Amino acid sequence: MPPKRFLFGPGPTQVEPSVYQAMTQPLVGYLDPYFFEVAADVRRLLQSAFGTKNDLTLAISGTGSSGMETAVTNFVEPGEKLLVFSAGFFADRIAEMGRRHRADVIKIDKPWGETFSGAEARAAIEREKPAVVAFVHAETSTGALQDPKEIAAAAHSSGALVIADCVTSLGGAPIDVDENDIDIAYSCTQKGLSCPPGLSPFTVSPRAVEQLNARATPNEVWYFDLKLLRDYYDGRKYHHTAPISTFYALQEGLRSIEREGFHQRWKRHAEAHAQFVGGVERLGLSMHVAAGQRIPTLNTVRVPENVDDVKVRTRLLDDEGIEIAGGFGPLAGKIFRIGVMGPLATPDNVNFFIGALSGALS
Amino acid sequence: MPPKRFLFGPGPTQVEPSVYQAMTQPLVGYLDPYFFEVAADVRRLLQSAFGTKNDLTLAISGTGSSGMETAVTNFVEPGEKLLVFSAGFFADRIAEMGRRHRADVIKIDKPWGETFSGAEARAAIEREKPAVVAFVHAETSTGALQDPKEIAAAAHSSGALVIADCVTSLGGAPIDVDENDIDIAYSCTQKGLSCPPGLSPFTVSPRAVEQLNARATPNEVWYFDLKLLRDYYDGRKYHHTAPISTFYALQEGLRSIEREGFHQRWKRHAEAHAQFVGGVERLGLSMHVAAGQRIPTLNTVRVPENVDDVKVRTRLLDDEGIEIAGGFGPLAGKIFRIGVMGPLATPDNVNFFIGALSGALS
Repeated sequence: MPPKRFLFGPGPTQVEPSVYQAMTQPLVGYLDPYFFEVAADVRRLLQSAFGTKNDLTLAISGTGSSGMETAVTNFVEPGEKLLVFSAGFFADRIAEMGRRHRADVIKIDKPWGETFSGAEARAAIEREKPAVVAFVHAETSTGALQDPKEIAAAAHSSGALVIADCVTSLGGAPIDVDENDIDIAYSCTQKGLSCPPGLSPFTVSPRAVEQLNARATPNEVWYFDLKLLRDYYDGRKYHHTAPISTFYALQEGLRSIEREGFHQRWKRHAEAHAQFVGGVERLGLSMHVAAGQRIPTLNTVRVPENVDDVKVRTRLLDDEGIEIAGGFGPLAGKIFRIGVMGPLATPDNVNFFIGALSGALS
Repeated sequence: MPPKRFLFGPGPTQVEPSVYQAMTQPLVGYLDPYFFEVAADVRRLLQSAFGTKNDLTLAISGTGSSGMETAVTNFVEPGEKLLVFSAGFFADRIAEMGRRHRADVIKIDKPWGETFSGAEARAAIEREKPAVVAFVHAETSTGALQDPKEIAAAAHSSGALVIADCVTSLGGAPIDVDENDIDIAYSCTQKGLSCPPGLSPFTVSPRAVEQLNARATPNEVWYFDLKLLRDYYDGRKYHHTAPISTFYALQEGLRSIEREGFHQRWKRHAEAHAQFVGGVERLGLSMHVAAGQRIPTLNTVRVPENVDDVKVRTRLLDDEGIEIAGGFGPLAGKIFRIGVMGPLATPDNVNFFIGALSGALS
């Protein structure tokens, strides 16, 4: 039996009992009409979560990182220039995947925790003239939320496609894929959507679909080939055996969000975030990211001087069963990463957490 | 609510209630010591299922097809010669993945339903001198079971690595990875292991590990990079967020097999297969694959002349809730593909199925 944890880390986060129960529904075959009903319902609900009318909206049969691989391998051809705006670990990973797929990768770096201004984005894009621009909407390693709008506008003026990593934002904050004019966005199921990990929500704009159709070289990775995946989900032509039970969970998780209301959910998370920030500041702690640039679902709190972050995290886990995460890379030992998502984003749970943190620090 | 099906197709197959229930256990984090206990238990049990002592035995975070992609992308470098023995759809897919990863692919073809003799394998390997040899142990598209022993021996005499696709055999038939001297084997969770789809069991011989360590070019696919996956499962260094709930299911499914006994399970499947063949032959039907070369868990039965296979399959589904599959490619309309696996591989269930098939044919 697994230990009972309060998952206040960056993910996986707490899952509603109805979502766990959905996985006990009996399997059907991968070409069963019932499965395609589930997949169609998941598509409709993901469109609401992403804020898009994109037809090509689906769930990739892998975890969030497989969505990143799908984005890079389908939309960055070997030799093409990929410009990555990086101020954290996950943006660096996009660059690493681009290099492995033999793209000409240009990485623009800022300190971990900062974001890029419209002017910075525009200058880099006009100078480099990339085929594809990638950025991380909500950088899990730092807690910073990047405004997509001006990056996308500059990229499109320059004829580039735009990839947005939304692994930590989907479900917990609006992404507005259509309004922000993002071409390719991907996420995971185990953070803002409060489901178990195992699928990667993915959406593609009509502009990017055109480029996909016109692609000169075959995709190197058969498993993540969006043309074959489209033939499967739209044309019912066998590709792979989708993880049916995980689809049941995702459908129920998304339906539960729909029952609450997507906008109501985002508002609840924003309120929990404000309460959290007020609470830690009353403890004398400070947030790592500047106000106005923070991810509402994933808070990064500076470790006070002379405090050992590992000791604090161990006390939280041992005494209260609370899981949080530390920083890594340049932020190792310097921040706590604390997720307040899904069922945990309520006034009572935030109070419970702030009390526990206060105790662990004392 | 999904419809209740008897899954007598090639997979997904019937799942035990205890395996569904395992997925309702609460999630823990991807670095939680409890998760690594689960992963270690899964490794131990997969070693028994594969018949190996290989240290590098794990579950890839994708479906069975992702295991194929992992095998090709880690062990076939661009420009290397990959020899594929193909008498079916899934061997053709290995060749397709090899071409996409820029291997020099040589495919040796035989009619769908046949297997390769040791002499045929040796002649091709000695002529082509490939770096890697691949074959399908149990070809789901045809029902044929390939003897691995002589292919592996010929490949090793020639200094090549051996990849075996065990998607349909693992759990339902012995594979004897060590005794057969197979270097890389992969499978799925939703056929012979009677679990939901979503993970790909994978094992690597010490000889193949050495080649992996000495690889000249980086793996193109970060998500399936076995070096990074080894650092995660052995070194607890974050790579991706594993699908925790699906691991719980796989652990429980494997434990349930261990409780029955691996050898007892293989014997039960062999007996159910013999009973099935006797039953369909008494109905005047004939098997597609020659005796002695048949997969015990996936039977291919010839569609009689003047019988419309779609009508038969529709009647089985509508009248009895029984799912079976048809043939495809050169076998479209010519065979039924009938899985008798896991909880369905019992005398009563085989009788029930034969009775239903008899009714649907009349």
